[in-house]
Amino acid sequence: MEKADILIENCMILPMTRKRPIDKGSIAVKDGKIIFVGKPAKTAKIRAEKKMDGKGKVAIPGLINAHTHVSMTLFRGIAEDKPLNTWLKETIWPLEAKLKPEDTYKGALLGCLEMIKSGTTCFADMYFSEEMVAKAVEQSGLRAVLAEGIFEAGSSFLGEKMLRKSVDFVRKFDGYANGRVTALLGPHAAYSCGEKLLKKICCEASRLGVGIHIHLAESEEFKQKYRLSEVEFLDKIGILERHVLAAHCLYLSENDMHILSERKVNAVYVPVSNMKLASGTAKVKDLMRFGVNVCLGTDGPASNNTLDMFETMKMATLLQKIAYGDPTVLPAYKVLEMATINGAKALGLSEKIGTIEEGKRADIVLVDLLRPHLTPLHDIYASLVYSVRGSDVDTVIVDGKILMEHRQVKFLDEDAVMEKAEKTALNLLSR
Amino acid sequence: MEKADILIENCMILPMTRKRPIDKGSIAVKDGKIIFVGKPAKTAKIRAEKKMDGKGKVAIPGLINAHTHVSMTLFRGIAEDKPLNTWLKETIWPLEAKLKPEDTYKGALLGCLEMIKSGTTCFADMYFSEEMVAKAVEQSGLRAVLAEGIFEAGSSFLGEKMLRKSVDFVRKFDGYANGRVTALLGPHAAYSCGEKLLKKICCEASRLGVGIHIHLAESEEFKQKYRLSEVEFLDKIGILERHVLAAHCLYLSENDMHILSERKVNAVYVPVSNMKLASGTAKVKDLMRFGVNVCLGTDGPASNNTLDMFETMKMATLLQKIAYGDPTVLPAYKVLEMATINGAKALGLSEKIGTIEEGKRADIVLVDLLRPHLTPLHDIYASLVYSVRGSDVDTVIVDGKILMEHRQVKFLDEDAVMEKAEKTALNLLSR
Repeated sequence: MEKADILIENCMILPMTRKRPIDKGSIAVKDGKIIFVGKPAKTAKIRAEKKMDGKGKVAIPGLINAHTHVSMTLFRGIAEDKPLNTWLKETIWPLEAKLKPEDTYKGALLGCLEMIKSGTTCFADMYFSEEMVAKAVEQSGLRAVLAEGIFEAGSSFLGEKMLRKSVDFVRKFDGYANGRVTALLGPHAAYSCGEKLLKKICCEASRLGVGIHIHLAESEEFKQKYRLSEVEFLDKIGILERHVLAAHCLYLSENDMHILSERKVNAVYVPVSNMKLASGTAKVKDLMRFGVNVCLGTDGPASNNTLDMFETMKMATLLQKIAYGDPTVLPAYKVLEMATINGAKALGLSEKIGTIEEGKRADIVLVDLLRPHLTPLHDIYASLVYSVRGSDVDTVIVDGKILMEHRQVKFLDEDAVMEKAEKTALNLLSR
Repeated sequence: MEKADILIENCMILPMTRKRPIDKGSIAVKDGKIIFVGKPAKTAKIRAEKKMDGKGKVAIPGLINAHTHVSMTLFRGIAEDKPLNTWLKETIWPLEAKLKPEDTYKGALLGCLEMIKSGTTCFADMYFSEEMVAKAVEQSGLRAVLAEGIFEAGSSFLGEKMLRKSVDFVRKFDGYANGRVTALLGPHAAYSCGEKLLKKICCEASRLGVGIHIHLAESEEFKQKYRLSEVEFLDKIGILERHVLAAHCLYLSENDMHILSERKVNAVYVPVSNMKLASGTAKVKDLMRFGVNVCLGTDGPASNNTLDMFETMKMATLLQKIAYGDPTVLPAYKVLEMATINGAKALGLSEKIGTIEEGKRADIVLVDLLRPHLTPLHDIYASLVYSVRGSDVDTVIVDGKILMEHRQVKFLDEDAVMEKAEKTALNLLSR
């Protein structure tokens, strides 16, 4: 065997291609790719630049946060326990109007740091000044699928301008950071973009060959107003024929679910934010029955208030169990699939990431299992979904690069990132 | 001022007697008691044996977990995503039948370790071989309110025997460990103890001058069977005239809530377990409207699967918000009250703990705020409820003794406790 860059040894591995774990296995990484997974034959010692001891740890595919607005770390805890409209109109929108690209960058860096420290290796983001998010992603070493948001709020001039910016972003940043960044167009929602604008977005997506990141059915208002569901409306326009990443998916009829399934739309279930804003509960069991690919997201930190995907995994299944009145709904293995391979599919990256397999890019997280709250270890999937916290993540590897080892982050200065974000947030409030 | 044993300086303090935090304050502790809280006058320097720097930290009253079965750490993750009856009958009860007192002790030590590491300073427990839990509490330095469980399962002989054991436990352990342990009688539930037995328990509680810890209205079965609610039934017997700690409180009519309020019954809201087992959702907003004191519990780790009260605080408010469809329900400050002073009231300890006040016992937790997921700090209560994880707890003081400092636990050997619990759990499975 050729010499590897990184060799993780003596580790429990959850490849997420099947349920049975590999016990005391090895993972070899070279040129950013996984070149070996399994139990190495005793005679065939793998040589490597860097060896990592996996004893007492479990290796899982890096978690994928399929819907967030990462720069909103700046607004974490700024307007709590308020109704959605008050929250948006009195606090979030006025602050966002004052945001400069440099602020977005500071917020994004903080978000990237938080994600690395809690085992997320890839995220899908939609916001303003997305080029600054791309820069933070490049610097931190993470992988991301980014979209510059588009809305018109009654002004077709604004809509056109935002569409041009979103298209420009795709042209400049799709493939950025050695291919770790890919780009989508980001129409905010059916209710915030008119039919004409959405048609143009659809054409541009087709021309650019990229997908679309959109908020879908987060409330019932659209259907009440237009007697047509958001899904039916978007389908009529043709949007759903593109590769679509649809966040929330709360208020869906059976017919809506059928359409989402037919059009292969990817649904992002966002349980914490949906609970915190009391938006509603996605019918994940039904979506899955219809064959819709469902993955997980945290939403922005202003409505969560963390980017911790382990927490989101736990909430994801707890909320489904109570909503369906059935403790067997969404068992732990299924939830971990949602946070890994389903996320990869939803982001159009299933050839590259989402499992620990030979040939895939090396996006790997090592979780330390030697903790009181993870003892005894009867069921590794239950442990990961019901007991592990982000702080149990020991090591994070993205694209074959070590971003964190034994909780030491490599490419970001943790104190400086926190200090700058804190200052930016205070400054924003005083503007 | 006299010399203190411990002095915490330069710390944000949330006394929980009022909402406004004390910024850069000091707390002085002597002989287990808080002797000063506030901003010390510049001239009056407090001398102390041990000084602690509170910079970048917040001091809160130790969290109170008002309902758990702590030895069930041994069963963490052992039977996941199963219906309640299957879970109990096929896994939990057969294993519990094999439990020896020594096993209970090992499980309790692990639970105590986990609680210290996540900021819980006091817990209410109900289980078998509760004397072993008392020993683990003494050894770990925690505070606890313990009850030996009583049920009869159709056999009045068994019921009598368990009642005697529960009474014996109170006689021997009320006031144990320098007063850190107090005792209650522990009738399991209205459906598992008959009327005659419950009447005897009521008399014994009255004679001993102690309260009662019971499961209440965790399902609808009782009412369907007897056309009388569990609350009405217990009230008829006179149980509710005692000091009662009632866990779950899910299926309550308005009349039930009225009775609980009149009888000053303390309700323990157990959101994570209720969601995981799909038991139902407590109507906390209504309970509070009726004036019932509501506090928080994790339940046993087999149905949670952690003892992390920070997680329970977050789930507590998220579940209420989605259940009532109202994001303003249970704001963060209220939730922290539930986990501190309301818990103290429910456990009959509000004279001693639950707030940071001069004259109270020193049960204090310092949380490290210099973390990416806690930055920026716009709202300390939102931070504690929506963002802090158990792993952010830096220091834990109980009864004036430091149980953990900078995450180093003092009176328990962390590795040994974990190893012994792991071995015990495996051994239990092989019996």
